[in-house]
Amino acid sequence: MDNFTFYAPTYFDFGRGAEEHVAELIQQFGGSRVLLHYGGGSIKKSGLYDRVVSTLQKAGIPFVELGGVRPNPRSGLVYEGIELCKKEKVDFILAVGGGSTIDSSKAIAAGSLYDGDFLDFYQGKAVIEKALPIGTILTIAAAGSEGSPNTVITDESTQIKKGAKSELLRPKFSVLNPELTCTLPAYQTAAGATDIMAHVCERYFSNTEEVEITDRLCEAVLKTMIYETPRVIEDPDNYEARANIMWAGMLAHNNICGVGRSQDWASHHIEHELSALYDVTHGAGLAVIMPKWMRYVLEINPDKFVLFAERVWDIKPGMNKKKTAQKGIEAFENFLKSIGMPSTFDEIGAKEEDIELLTDKLLGSRKTEGNYVKLTREDVIHIYKSAL
Amino acid sequence: MDNFTFYAPTYFDFGRGAEEHVAELIQQFGGSRVLLHYGGGSIKKSGLYDRVVSTLQKAGIPFVELGGVRPNPRSGLVYEGIELCKKEKVDFILAVGGGSTIDSSKAIAAGSLYDGDFLDFYQGKAVIEKALPIGTILTIAAAGSEGSPNTVITDESTQIKKGAKSELLRPKFSVLNPELTCTLPAYQTAAGATDIMAHVCERYFSNTEEVEITDRLCEAVLKTMIYETPRVIEDPDNYEARANIMWAGMLAHNNICGVGRSQDWASHHIEHELSALYDVTHGAGLAVIMPKWMRYVLEINPDKFVLFAERVWDIKPGMNKKKTAQKGIEAFENFLKSIGMPSTFDEIGAKEEDIELLTDKLLGSRKTEGNYVKLTREDVIHIYKSAL
Repeated sequence: MDNFTFYAPTYFDFGRGAEEHVAELIQQFGGSRVLLHYGGGSIKKSGLYDRVVSTLQKAGIPFVELGGVRPNPRSGLVYEGIELCKKEKVDFILAVGGGSTIDSSKAIAAGSLYDGDFLDFYQGKAVIEKALPIGTILTIAAAGSEGSPNTVITDESTQIKKGAKSELLRPKFSVLNPELTCTLPAYQTAAGATDIMAHVCERYFSNTEEVEITDRLCEAVLKTMIYETPRVIEDPDNYEARANIMWAGMLAHNNICGVGRSQDWASHHIEHELSALYDVTHGAGLAVIMPKWMRYVLEINPDKFVLFAERVWDIKPGMNKKKTAQKGIEAFENFLKSIGMPSTFDEIGAKEEDIELLTDKLLGSRKTEGNYVKLTREDVIHIYKSAL
Repeated sequence: MDNFTFYAPTYFDFGRGAEEHVAELIQQFGGSRVLLHYGGGSIKKSGLYDRVVSTLQKAGIPFVELGGVRPNPRSGLVYEGIELCKKEKVDFILAVGGGSTIDSSKAIAAGSLYDGDFLDFYQGKAVIEKALPIGTILTIAAAGSEGSPNTVITDESTQIKKGAKSELLRPKFSVLNPELTCTLPAYQTAAGATDIMAHVCERYFSNTEEVEITDRLCEAVLKTMIYETPRVIEDPDNYEARANIMWAGMLAHNNICGVGRSQDWASHHIEHELSALYDVTHGAGLAVIMPKWMRYVLEINPDKFVLFAERVWDIKPGMNKKKTAQKGIEAFENFLKSIGMPSTFDEIGAKEEDIELLTDKLLGSRKTEGNYVKLTREDVIHIYKSAL
């Protein structure tokens, strides 16, 4: 196990009706002028928007609002948010939505207290030293942004999707009411589940040895997802299954499953290029890429895949380790298929002729991608091609 | 799943040499005058005391010290600590030791900012509204107090051991260096492991349904302990096994395994009376009591024990659920025996003639104890007697 630090001071208010506490939570964490940040029409249609506004008004908390966050959130709206926060002297951002809205809020939170271009943080040109505090009301179990220090934004000028990370960006509080996720369409639910499982896999496939406790935690989250996801696909109103998935989604990405070990993240980065270029739903892109990555790196570094097969997918240990490992990946592929996820470029509108471009954008000036196996340019091209 | 809140803002600095950061951690969390609180001679013998003192001195942090915490920490030393903190205007407590030292520190932290008797908090007569911040350097993986809001103290005037709980008592930081636990004797190591497993079981045996994610997390910690404990008993210097156990010990009791579900705690409370009366090592007392509790309540509420047998102890499902469940408990008993833990009153110096007294002190004016099965006075007596 490697040395590590772990600090996850987000306050979680979990359960039915939890959004009713949002005004007192904002006040508890020092908010007095709020930016209410959200996405499209779904929170208006569901009545959540009205309930939140009414709660803020009753508590006498002044707020301005900025809607319009789209999946794979864009830099343009972030600039707008930053300007609004500065002009209105906002001191707290409330994100109501999924990972895109929360990630957009985090960008605004850091950008509002920075003199330069907020994209500096995403391009490695500057380190976040200050950020407005944020709180969230989560409406999709997927990105884990509700409990993480991470944010991903697409730069509209270059169509490059990049992440930034700072402990200052961890939400002060997150309201997790599984009821709010019951109206999600099956495809979005399944894509969210795929993202959650991918967050765990990026941590599970590690070359750090002797990490039994975090291995077991990773397996716990994956086993939960394998059990609960088909239940919500079958019955979208299954509160209990939604609840287990929602909490699993937080655990998958607040790094409790990832401390003390090297992590991979190649599949996420390879997918980000697809999302940026074709506006693919991130989880759906991961469903295409991650099993291809697995089949490719299995040939080079098979050890962890045997554990994955035996412990996560209950494959009986056999004489041939590689066959056992392959059966695990096959089980994962079948699972993704069973919940309606795509597995090819065609299904997500990606094109063979863009593979060179995708690879160029991914690697930039870097020579390799990922960690479990360090992928060269040729490796990445091979993985993209195996999705044709 | 029940509604819940979860907030665990302890900063963990984990790994080899982590105690070197203690001065900067104290400063980071606002400490400027420190009470250094510790137990007996072991931290002096190991050189840890000298290293901590030297680190504080180098950083120019003034401190006073109070040693002498014994296992099953006593009220007398807490009064002394409170007086010292008030007199010396201490604003931060650094606990260097195991659960007893940390629990004693928590009592001093709350008592120093309270005008009445600190035992009011432990007797349900007052609620903790203020407490000095504390930090810890952990030397035993066992109690989980390094990441929990809990504290247990023995009132010397009555020999009653009682707990208190407040979010204000969660340590601001905890330094977890597994190397510091390598000198622990096998018996203390095994008792610590038993305590860790018991913390999980108190949460696992719940009547709340549809808690797949927390069930799986509980099983993850238990499986880790089953794998790692024999390895450290075999080889006390096994850093990797010590590391996995140390982190598992924190996870077992910061409530990440317990949110959203009813919890039991009968075994802990039944054991506390043994510790208070005979000064038994808490984990050893749990090794005697918990399997007896299991065998007794299995007859009344067997469901969760089947899961425990199949998922934690890899018992193959059979036609007869009760037999499967019994095999799980038997496996737990054999495990405890294999790591050198006791299973009878005799082995821990407890006496049959005290059973009425133990039960009286346990129940006080309450009619039942525990939750998974609500134990009456007769039930508790039966459990104590089955340990003869």
